[in-house]
Amino acid sequence: MITVLRIGHRMPRDKRITTHVSLVARAFGADNILIDTNDKKIETTINSTCTRFGGDFKIQTGINSKKIIKNWDGTIVHLTMYGQQTDKAIEKIDRKKNLLIIVGAEKVPPWIYEQADFNISIGNQPHSEVAALAIFLDRYTKGSWLEKKYDGKIQIQPCDKGKKVISKK
Amino acid sequence: MITVLRIGHRMPRDKRITTHVSLVARAFGADNILIDTNDKKIETTINSTCTRFGGDFKIQTGINSKKIIKNWDGTIVHLTMYGQQTDKAIEKIDRKKNLLIIVGAEKVPPWIYEQADFNISIGNQPHSEVAALAIFLDRYTKGSWLEKKYDGKIQIQPCDKGKKVISKK
Repeated sequence: MITVLRIGHRMPRDKRITTHVSLVARAFGADNILIDTNDKKIETTINSTCTRFGGDFKIQTGINSKKIIKNWDGTIVHLTMYGQQTDKAIEKIDRKKNLLIIVGAEKVPPWIYEQADFNISIGNQPHSEVAALAIFLDRYTKGSWLEKKYDGKIQIQPCDKGKKVISKK
Repeated sequence: MITVLRIGHRMPRDKRITTHVSLVARAFGADNILIDTNDKKIETTINSTCTRFGGDFKIQTGINSKKIIKNWDGTIVHLTMYGQQTDKAIEKIDRKKNLLIIVGAEKVPPWIYEQADFNISIGNQPHSEVAALAIFLDRYTKGSWLEKKYDGKIQIQPCDKGKKVISKK
C-alpha cells in the first residue's frame, strides 16, 4: 500500500500543482492521496479521472496530517531537495511495509524531517514536487507502473501519430 | 544539445506549471527552454535560480514556436499521452543530433503530431507534463543528470535529517 500525503496545500495558489501531484500519484502506482486542506473541487477532478480512466485510486482532502504521520503504521518517506540521495536511500526501504510519501508545498516544518524515516532528494537542485514524486515512484516500483492495466471507459492505445482512443459505454 | 519547447503557455493559468517545467528542464539535463508566450517574470525566476544554483541553462520567452519547429536541425520529440511507449521509442533516437522536446499545455494542435519525429507517451494515463518531462529526460540521459556538478553560490549537500546548505559569497 502506497499513500501520498500532500501538505501545505493552499487554494487557489496550489490548485494545479496539487492536481498534477494527485494524477502522478495515481498514474505512477500509489493507491491513494491525502491532502491536508479541504478541497472538494480537486476531489471531483481526480474522482472524475478515476471513473473515466479506471483503477482504484482514492483521494481524501481536509485530513489532519499530524495525526496521519504520528499514527502511521509503516515507513515514512519525505521528498525534499535537502535529503539523502534517491538511489542509495531507496534500497533501504522495507517493501513489505506500508509506505507514506510526504510531498510538501513550499516550506515544510522541521518536525516533518524528524518524523520521516527517510528524507530523500531527487537530485539536490530545485525543481518540482510533481517531478520528484514521479521519479521516486518510478524508482521505487522499478518501473512497474508502466505495465499496470486499467479498466476505464476510456483506453488510450499508444500510436506513432495522432490519437487512438477507445471509449466503452 | 537538448532544448525544451513549451507551447500553449497562458498567463496567469500556467505560471506555476511552466515554472516547474523550466526547473525540471534545467535539473534533468536540458540546455535551454523556449516558451512561446512572452513572460518576463518567468525569465527572472529561472535566471535567478541559475545565478544562485549554477549551470549554463538558458531561458527565452515570446518565441515563434512554428518557426523553431519548422527550422529545427535535429530530432523533434513531442511528449503526449497518446504517443508510442517511452522505452521503445527512446532507443530509436539518434543521440548525436540536437534534440527538441515539445511540451504542450492542454490541447496541442494536430500539426505538432505530424511535425514531430517521435510522439512519445510516458504511460498512457493522464498525469502531468512536469512528470512526463522528468521521466523522459531521466530515461534519455540514462540518469546522468544526477551526477552533474554545479558551480552555484548555493550548494546543497545530501543529508539524513534537516538541511545542509553551503553558501559562497
